[in-house]
Amino acid sequence: MLPPRLRRRAREVEDRPDRAAAWAYTELARAVIDAVASYACAVKVQAAFFEALGPPGFEALARALRLARDHGLAAIADAKRGDIGPTSRAYAQGFFGGQEVDADVLPGLGADAVTVNPYFGTDGVEPFLEASDAGGGGVFVLVRTSNPSAAELQDLELAGGEGAPGPLYRRVAALVRRWAEGREGACGYSSVGAVAGATSPGALAQTRELLPRSILLVPGYGAQGASAGEVACAFDARGEGAVVSASRSITFADRSAETLEELAAAAARAAREMRDAVREAVARR
Amino acid sequence: MLPPRLRRRAREVEDRPDRAAAWAYTELARAVIDAVASYACAVKVQAAFFEALGPPGFEALARALRLARDHGLAAIADAKRGDIGPTSRAYAQGFFGGQEVDADVLPGLGADAVTVNPYFGTDGVEPFLEASDAGGGGVFVLVRTSNPSAAELQDLELAGGEGAPGPLYRRVAALVRRWAEGREGACGYSSVGAVAGATSPGALAQTRELLPRSILLVPGYGAQGASAGEVACAFDARGEGAVVSASRSITFADRSAETLEELAAAAARAAREMRDAVREAVARR
Repeated sequence: MLPPRLRRRAREVEDRPDRAAAWAYTELARAVIDAVASYACAVKVQAAFFEALGPPGFEALARALRLARDHGLAAIADAKRGDIGPTSRAYAQGFFGGQEVDADVLPGLGADAVTVNPYFGTDGVEPFLEASDAGGGGVFVLVRTSNPSAAELQDLELAGGEGAPGPLYRRVAALVRRWAEGREGACGYSSVGAVAGATSPGALAQTRELLPRSILLVPGYGAQGASAGEVACAFDARGEGAVVSASRSITFADRSAETLEELAAAAARAAREMRDAVREAVARR
Repeated sequence: MLPPRLRRRAREVEDRPDRAAAWAYTELARAVIDAVASYACAVKVQAAFFEALGPPGFEALARALRLARDHGLAAIADAKRGDIGPTSRAYAQGFFGGQEVDADVLPGLGADAVTVNPYFGTDGVEPFLEASDAGGGGVFVLVRTSNPSAAELQDLELAGGEGAPGPLYRRVAALVRRWAEGREGACGYSSVGAVAGATSPGALAQTRELLPRSILLVPGYGAQGASAGEVACAFDARGEGAVVSASRSITFADRSAETLEELAAAAARAAREMRDAVREAVARR
């Protein structure tokens, strides 16, 4: 989906296809982040698309996160990591820094926040919390995702047992609430947030209610089908506490763009329109 | 935990700490894989520890997978990836190859199999299945993990509803069974396997029963506490169909090793002993 002129230029600059693509991704990130910076509070970078390029993509991922931070935007690494404790610790160090090599401490990829999968339970999430506590960063735990088959696991009804009955994602939200406690900052929000998709408005509203102190990261806007009206319930009574994310509908707002400049101009327009639409929908509630 | 002499040599060869560590990891991988190759059927490489080093670590990860394949061992990338469909597709391309850059197709990291998190349901797993179908590789889906807090989500009792009641991991196993169907190869095993930890023998035995055509990847042996007797139930009636993995107890069998040669010799002994112990326990059933 990259503009033809950017692709041609990439092959002139770098001979190897992986390096050429990584170069183009960096140029794309630079242009789009510059363009949307005045309308956005955060940039969510999807690790997978960088990793698909191999090692040069991993370097481009670090550069994209840095570009967001250089603009004063929160750099969210959307990486959906999660493993047993010692392994999660290594992932957290990869994103937030902290891996020791003799007397040196590696800086990591420079993320302000990272998305985390809850399937391993507390000891798989804890190392991310500790690493973000140490560096002042944040964590977004998957509660209810935005994809069509999210329901297969996340909406399964639990038997009563020791907790309340209800869908699985509510139990995950209750765990997030526990992890979020005591981690509130100056604005009253915890550094532990949750991912709740806008494509399931009921689950989104419930997650908002269950997690009053958590910032919600809300995918599903735009290309995945959710409207401004559907994301409004992610914001709290103050009209704050949510980061609505859109990817393809911003970055590739103009699919016929010949140049990066045209693409960036369309991204700026799409970002401003989205911000205005979301603001209006939140005010209208 | 690297032998002191290897660490010193790394700092002589590479000045930057991230590159020095990545160089040492490659040397470690080479020595340990050489040492255990005659006792193992597969090498499970933990992506997190390589990623913690940043871009040079990602290159070392590709090299470690290649070293395993060069020995004719299955190279399992333990990466626990999972996301919505289009994003999972990018992850799958990162591990198995297939990302197109103009007329070129990138080779990926060269994994034979990758571990996948089921939280997104079918459409988050499908791209991995398609990529592995195309390249002849495999997928191991997390069913019941080996960490202490695995029970928090994975053992939650489901209400009846449309499926049978029982713990969540059994429902995940039922999904894996569906994904595995029609993907059996010459030996009768599907390319879709499951991760079931040896630290929860009841869940392991149940997973074996529910997934007769799937290879089980069984972590938890050794440092995490499971014995040969506890992993025996992972094998099917033919005494096959399971890959028991051990990490620290093999790679760092000799924690006081001064040199890589001493470390490798201890790894070879530990691998042989583990293989013999598991074989014996399976035969004794």
